Amino acid sequence: MGECFVERFEVAGAAEGPLAGLTFAAKDLFDVAGRVTGAGNPDWAASHPAATTHAAAVALLLEAGARLVGKTITDEISLGLLGVNAFDGTPLNPRAPDRAPGGSSSGSASAVAQGLCDAALGTDTGGSVRTPASFCGLYGLRPTHGRVPTAGMLPQAPGSDTAGWFARRGDVFARVGAVLIGEAPSAPPRGLSVAADAFGFAGPGVAEALAPALARLEAIVGPGREELLAPPGLAAWGRAQRTLQSAEAWQTFGPWVEATVPRFSFLVARSLMAGAATPPAELPPARLVRDEARGRLAHLTRGGACIALPATPDPAPKLGLPLSQMDRARDRINAICALGGLTGHPVLVLPGGEAEGAPVGLAVIGARGADASLLALAQIWEDA
Amino acid sequence: MGECFVERFEVAGAAEGPLAGLTFAAKDLFDVAGRVTGAGNPDWAASHPAATTHAAAVALLLEAGARLVGKTITDEISLGLLGVNAFDGTPLNPRAPDRAPGGSSSGSASAVAQGLCDAALGTDTGGSVRTPASFCGLYGLRPTHGRVPTAGMLPQAPGSDTAGWFARRGDVFARVGAVLIGEAPSAPPRGLSVAADAFGFAGPGVAEALAPALARLEAIVGPGREELLAPPGLAAWGRAQRTLQSAEAWQTFGPWVEATVPRFSFLVARSLMAGAATPPAELPPARLVRDEARGRLAHLTRGGACIALPATPDPAPKLGLPLSQMDRARDRINAICALGGLTGHPVLVLPGGEAEGAPVGLAVIGARGADASLLALAQIWEDA
Repeated sequence: MGECFVERFEVAGAAEGPLAGLTFAAKDLFDVAGRVTGAGNPDWAASHPAATTHAAAVALLLEAGARLVGKTITDEISLGLLGVNAFDGTPLNPRAPDRAPGGSSSGSASAVAQGLCDAALGTDTGGSVRTPASFCGLYGLRPTHGRVPTAGMLPQAPGSDTAGWFARRGDVFARVGAVLIGEAPSAPPRGLSVAADAFGFAGPGVAEALAPALARLEAIVGPGREELLAPPGLAAWGRAQRTLQSAEAWQTFGPWVEATVPRFSFLVARSLMAGAATPPAELPPARLVRDEARGRLAHLTRGGACIALPATPDPAPKLGLPLSQMDRARDRINAICALGGLTGHPVLVLPGGEAEGAPVGLAVIGARGADASLLALAQIWEDA
Repeated sequence: MGECFVERFEVAGAAEGPLAGLTFAAKDLFDVAGRVTGAGNPDWAASHPAATTHAAAVALLLEAGARLVGKTITDEISLGLLGVNAFDGTPLNPRAPDRAPGGSSSGSASAVAQGLCDAALGTDTGGSVRTPASFCGLYGLRPTHGRVPTAGMLPQAPGSDTAGWFARRGDVFARVGAVLIGEAPSAPPRGLSVAADAFGFAGPGVAEALAPALARLEAIVGPGREELLAPPGLAAWGRAQRTLQSAEAWQTFGPWVEATVPRFSFLVARSLMAGAATPPAELPPARLVRDEARGRLAHLTRGGACIALPATPDPAPKLGLPLSQMDRARDRINAICALGGLTGHPVLVLPGGEAEGAPVGLAVIGARGADASLLALAQIWEDA
């Protein structure tokens, strides 16, 4: 327990570039030439050859001068939000050592939070960057869907998959982000909706813990107006995304499962089977919920406005929980995080506050494509 | 691949006794004092302490003078019929090295078939002694339910669980069996039904392969009469047993899964979840099917008669099959083997013939409690 790297090694970046002098790690879902992408599962690793080229996001950071220092632990085949891996071990959450680090980009968040590298790549399909950023007190971005190239990154549900990243410091976070999105930080968003339903859904103490951060955000982007983020319910959005994402994940992994009959944690096997068992008739209504969610977020972010909500409804759960409590923690995170995959909007996680003595992040949803404005917000967050 | 022992060690038996000079192994579901019963799953082993006493069946054999030489590989927590274990490895089937050994008592059958011990203990809930006996060309008995004590044996579905054993030779098989059932071999059964539906259900070449063995059986027990073994269908019996057994297995293992969130092969996780997902309303009709199956077997074995059928519908499947073909192989075995757990009748597997160049056994169902007559049959089988 506690190790966050699957493998440590060094790949030098370009001699010069905007990220010269920075180090980064990559979640073990990103290809690194000459190495097997292990995806957090021994049978995945054993049944796949070494990558021949770097994933696009890895190549971008290397070309910009950053140095790659290793591959980090992920939840098995990216299916998980808690960061618990029964095969590779559960990375340390240095901000709350008796709690989960969050996942599935668990090792990347852990490595950055421990100061073992300046930044790290993660992936976010249903919350896998936002959750560990929130639990470990880091900056993290789930970019606009399609904004950061995902070539060479292990897919889960391509309709929702994104490549994101973490940093401890806002300026580093923005520098790395400018390379990944190919655009310099612009001006922060103007205009703010405060998601009253999401703050209400959050656990005891979370809204209070985030109040100072929310006030700081209002000072930057303008006064907030309380709004219903998800009129049909965060739970309805969560269910729609689970339906669509699980079915897509089974399309992605089913043929490998069929051919290889791999080992999994019971928790992961169950998630996969939920996808396999999705009745096709449930997909069209879930797509309608998605259409409405997209309309709602476009409305609330019109004119470059943003939306604030807790990045996760609770701080990290304790380690060693029984299955039903892990299920419950995951279900609650999904209700808050589903909107990312569902709508494709970018979601920034800012270091927020502490509840129960553990970090919880403040999330800021931007307009589609307005990733540069979220970088600008991160850049000035520490000084605001 | 190929190892059949989890652990080799020696526990001496009593200095004198009916089994003096014989060696045996025990499936890693039977307690051996001072050792952890690993049950074929690393998380089971890690979450359970060492046994303090021997399982009753182990103690019986030791007290009769046999020497214990090790614990053998089992399918994870006894859930499996093929003998494939992704954690401990798949034991060698020496009679067909490119095929599965059969399970879940895979290592016990493999050890005996390889000549590494004279006999070995297995368990049979839904076919776990009969299947590997058939696939490896061995003698094996699923005794009358309750006949051989199961104290200190890991339960799966107590309403169907039995402790059985394997041997290569009929005389050794009968000697060991007399100790386990506490009764000397009596006279072989008189009267024979030949299960026309089961022979018809068997794969290509199996009925032909078993014809000489069936003729030999008729020479011992009298001429056979063709009968429908399962009027509602072997598939209906298989389904009823699966429903009842899976639900019971979830009762047995669910609390541990909840507390430990263990790793499993996808195949095993799926079987467990089938039990967890059984609608309670499916249990009463399955119990009615069970009542009728018991009535049917009591009728066909009245007066000490027996019933002949293929021990498995096919010889062992090839190693490395994809998931859906493993499912299909298991479903076919279940259709033939379900009657054991469903009715509690004893079922003897005799070395039968070869189909596709691999062994397939002849099964003989006896009257409830008439285990001693099946021992008598095994005792003279080689010389008949």
